[in-house]
Amino acid sequence: MSAGWLAIAGLGPGDEALVTPEVSAALAAASDVIGYIPYVRRVAPRAGLTRHESDNRVELDRARHALSLAAGGARVVVVSSGDPGVFAMASAVFEAIEAGEPSWRGLDVRVLPGITAMLAASARAGAPLGHDFCAINLSDNLKPAALIERRLRLAAEADFAIALYNPRSVARPDGLDQALAVLRAACVDSRPVLFARAVATPAESLRVVPLPQARGEMADMRTLVIVGSSRTRLIERPGAPWLYTPRSAA
Amino acid sequence: MSAGWLAIAGLGPGDEALVTPEVSAALAAASDVIGYIPYVRRVAPRAGLTRHESDNRVELDRARHALSLAAGGARVVVVSSGDPGVFAMASAVFEAIEAGEPSWRGLDVRVLPGITAMLAASARAGAPLGHDFCAINLSDNLKPAALIERRLRLAAEADFAIALYNPRSVARPDGLDQALAVLRAACVDSRPVLFARAVATPAESLRVVPLPQARGEMADMRTLVIVGSSRTRLIERPGAPWLYTPRSAA
Repeated sequence: MSAGWLAIAGLGPGDEALVTPEVSAALAAASDVIGYIPYVRRVAPRAGLTRHESDNRVELDRARHALSLAAGGARVVVVSSGDPGVFAMASAVFEAIEAGEPSWRGLDVRVLPGITAMLAASARAGAPLGHDFCAINLSDNLKPAALIERRLRLAAEADFAIALYNPRSVARPDGLDQALAVLRAACVDSRPVLFARAVATPAESLRVVPLPQARGEMADMRTLVIVGSSRTRLIERPGAPWLYTPRSAA
Repeated sequence: MSAGWLAIAGLGPGDEALVTPEVSAALAAASDVIGYIPYVRRVAPRAGLTRHESDNRVELDRARHALSLAAGGARVVVVSSGDPGVFAMASAVFEAIEAGEPSWRGLDVRVLPGITAMLAASARAGAPLGHDFCAINLSDNLKPAALIERRLRLAAEADFAIALYNPRSVARPDGLDQALAVLRAACVDSRPVLFARAVATPAESLRVVPLPQARGEMADMRTLVIVGSSRTRLIERPGAPWLYTPRSAA
């Protein structure tokens, strides 16, 4: 049996100019690409490459499928958007390994980093993550809403800039409004909030509003939200203002 | 006068395979590259390109120099390692713009994201940042030690995985030991701590130890430290164990 391998690769936010050469090389060497439908479709078809598209919310099944193929000698790339290690497929693969076939622990598994959504959004707006920050996934499929609220309160108390992933979905239309209400209660100022939608794609749009005016309806499933710290500033200018957090805390 | 521009670009952690095509294209189009000495030296010399090397800790001078050149029509790339928006040059450039010439607000300034150290380190070790996490800069040049300690305590209380940037320097030999003491007092368990040194370079080394055994001397200026959350796990295997944080909080 030939030596299979499994790479868990980040495709970045959308623009091909943000895909690392390391990821492109893995895709060029792969026999199989596996992932959520829109991510797999970002990989061009070619002879010798099988593309396996799967639905959302079947991450563990997808991970086990990828591991089985690699164990059988295939050269497998599991694709995520952004970075695979941030609220994406890398953890699902390791969960599948830990609970799965003992032989899977001997496989050649590599995680190939990518430009995660908050870095792309921050770059487009300026530098809102230039000082201490945190990243919180608002999806409550995998954690209780009370834990999300507690983390938001503590993050505000620590005065982190806060990147909110998966801020809104059809299943949780009120999740972001609840999060913003927690932050408004914890923060007396009107720090800026960035709604960055579909960054690095043709549909990109950016909007900055003060926290008191931020509303859940300003985000959809393709939006990344960054709530500034108390020190985050706007620079007014001819075009859209720049948003940045100074390096200094005082 | 020809139209100058300024790009603030992330070179990633070291390996050229982790430099995005967007950054490579900006460097190929530049007339001037500016940055801290070791980062500027990662850009190959060529006809038509002037490389400006500057010492560390002169970020604002460097930013003003870059802005002046761009205002004069130069095509300028300010280089950072990792991502320029995370504890790097992007905030310094916006600070310089805000306090500088009003005309600088009309310049073409772009931030080009890169693979920041915590994403590269996480990928090499597995997926320790697979659930909610924060990033804290331990440098106390720009913030008081008491604020760092407070953030660490709140981050532990929120049960974030914690990425520690600039964990140790000659000027602050005890900073990481103090941070680890705060975390040991706040965390009763023996969660794993990753010391990732010089990731994606020939000098790369990784070490994982339980929090009670973590010591400041395990890090140097080239190390990124990731302290797991209470849920971060090790998968034992023939080689180095994999480190990951499950997607679920319960």
